[in-house]
Amino acid sequence: MPKKIEESKKEIEKKLEEIGKKILEDIKHKRVPYLNIPSRTTNNIVYDPKSMCYVLGDKMITRSAGNIRHVKPLAQMLKIATFCKELVKEGTKHETKRGLYYISESWGEKLKFDEQQESDNLIEDIEAMIGKPREDIHIIPNPGGSVYGDLTLRFKNPAGKMMEINCLQTADGQTIGPRMCEAEIVKCNADKVIAIETAGMYNRLMEEGAHKKFNAILVNLGGQATRATRRLIKRLNEIKNLPVYIFTDGDPWGLHIAMVIMAGSAKSAHINKMLATPSAQWIGVTATDIKKYKLRADKLRDVDFARIKELKKDPRYRKDKRLQEELKTWEEIKKKAEQQALLKYGLRYVVDEYLPAKLKELEKR
Amino acid sequence: MPKKIEESKKEIEKKLEEIGKKILEDIKHKRVPYLNIPSRTTNNIVYDPKSMCYVLGDKMITRSAGNIRHVKPLAQMLKIATFCKELVKEGTKHETKRGLYYISESWGEKLKFDEQQESDNLIEDIEAMIGKPREDIHIIPNPGGSVYGDLTLRFKNPAGKMMEINCLQTADGQTIGPRMCEAEIVKCNADKVIAIETAGMYNRLMEEGAHKKFNAILVNLGGQATRATRRLIKRLNEIKNLPVYIFTDGDPWGLHIAMVIMAGSAKSAHINKMLATPSAQWIGVTATDIKKYKLRADKLRDVDFARIKELKKDPRYRKDKRLQEELKTWEEIKKKAEQQALLKYGLRYVVDEYLPAKLKELEKR
Repeated sequence: MPKKIEESKKEIEKKLEEIGKKILEDIKHKRVPYLNIPSRTTNNIVYDPKSMCYVLGDKMITRSAGNIRHVKPLAQMLKIATFCKELVKEGTKHETKRGLYYISESWGEKLKFDEQQESDNLIEDIEAMIGKPREDIHIIPNPGGSVYGDLTLRFKNPAGKMMEINCLQTADGQTIGPRMCEAEIVKCNADKVIAIETAGMYNRLMEEGAHKKFNAILVNLGGQATRATRRLIKRLNEIKNLPVYIFTDGDPWGLHIAMVIMAGSAKSAHINKMLATPSAQWIGVTATDIKKYKLRADKLRDVDFARIKELKKDPRYRKDKRLQEELKTWEEIKKKAEQQALLKYGLRYVVDEYLPAKLKELEKR
Repeated sequence: MPKKIEESKKEIEKKLEEIGKKILEDIKHKRVPYLNIPSRTTNNIVYDPKSMCYVLGDKMITRSAGNIRHVKPLAQMLKIATFCKELVKEGTKHETKRGLYYISESWGEKLKFDEQQESDNLIEDIEAMIGKPREDIHIIPNPGGSVYGDLTLRFKNPAGKMMEINCLQTADGQTIGPRMCEAEIVKCNADKVIAIETAGMYNRLMEEGAHKKFNAILVNLGGQATRATRRLIKRLNEIKNLPVYIFTDGDPWGLHIAMVIMAGSAKSAHINKMLATPSAQWIGVTATDIKKYKLRADKLRDVDFARIKELKKDPRYRKDKRLQEELKTWEEIKKKAEQQALLKYGLRYVVDEYLPAKLKELEKR
């Protein structure tokens, strides 16, 4: 069942309030106020083979008003939590991390941030504490990609009015920004998601009717997927139970674009579980495809070989035999290909031949 | 009056046909077939002070079947023109420059391109010959920004069905891709366009109701504007007579984002007049604004100073006293600011104070 917007809003407000309440309780009981925050340093980032994600371990750090160096960030964290609680309460307003940094100018000399890294760091602390991504406290990522397909979403528009749209009611796709990635999924007639690395191939699939033929929601990643796009993909997967397939260029960078959707990144271990779609599958273009389909290919460069070496050692790749084999095949054929290379067989080939064959293969796994 | 899609389609088909007809005529009259093509080399790129654009001069090059080195590109150009004519005729299909390069694989060893630069070059030749941007022959640029506001557009959707959308019927904006930038403008209740450099500020303006307050169409440029976005802005300016205002970060790079919308680039002299909006105005953040609004600013770096020097010499800046003054002011204050720095005065300040003051100032010019 899709979560109702209003329910989740109350829950978030409560979680933010609890941060302040903890401090108030300490003061009431004449304790030195402090907060326990999950540690996000390297030695607390562990690989969880089950979820295939990097996640945080059990280590906590304590930020205490008894430590002179902690007083300022403790106060700043409360200020951010207050600001975000107001955003959540108001309901229609969102800001970026960058925006929040500039807003702190108005908090006075003692509370304002000197560098954006300081405010970014506290936002991530809050994410780790409340176990929710910053989108939920209305600190939004940049919009990325776009979506096309028979998907009806309900959201509050910027003026605060509830509104429904269908993602076929668009010329080139609906931009995936703060409202799209959090919208309530009212209706979804598709039975899978196909996410596409390049805008060119996304357009090809739209124009060849891939959304109808495969009964799919098409997502344009536009390169490395933004958080907003990863979040929408995850929600379609979790709430509507749609399998997710990722179609990239045929090089280690394309494969890693798929991997970040499947497993997140090491850097965002505190939030991976909320953004990653572990059951998502990589369609290709695989190294094997380059041989099989005789695609026009370019030579792998030194940086590509270095990247392949890194990925072979990465725990996210280690347990997947297929991906290990593909990494090896790249090293053997020493070539990479773009997804548009499939156009040598005509505009419809990718929809008539390539994708049906690949989807059949992946559905069996 | 907005041009009807069908009318313009016939015109384009005819222009492409004429390329082939010229060759046929030559053969019929036993002349060695050749084509005259506007020269796009540096010595034929001239600055046109009236349109404030770089444009092509009168020099032509001749590509003749009598020259062995010309035979292949001449044949390839005819092949591209044929392929594009089919796309235009079919009506719903588009390809990217990259896609076209891969498609040429199927044209056989003698006609296929060895490097994408070769096919890109011929596409630009065709643009120069027919005096139309490649969007019109369905070779599309990457989608860029997005648009939000009371604007109703009519277009053929990817399945070929005529469809109308209103650009308020969206959560985060409608992606500006091949269909959006060419769509027929059915209704536009706004009386100006405000184009915004960053997605963060675009979202701020949406959420503060800037589209209503200023009766404006909001365009998210997402950094340097793509061709698709520039084309939509120009069409709103030309067809609906809307003044265009560009709101960027307060640095020479932001100013140049505005300049490319106003005057195009030197590299695309053959097409500038079709993409540029010479009457567009730069709102700021200006160097003067940084002082006046006491914005949090960063030091200009060496690359910024070098850029300012380049721009001061650029003919596109030379005749505009205001822009020259601003370039000088940057050199004096040695600082740059982002547009989100205005948030220090609160979320609504940009809509309640900054933009009204700036628009009033620009309307007087």
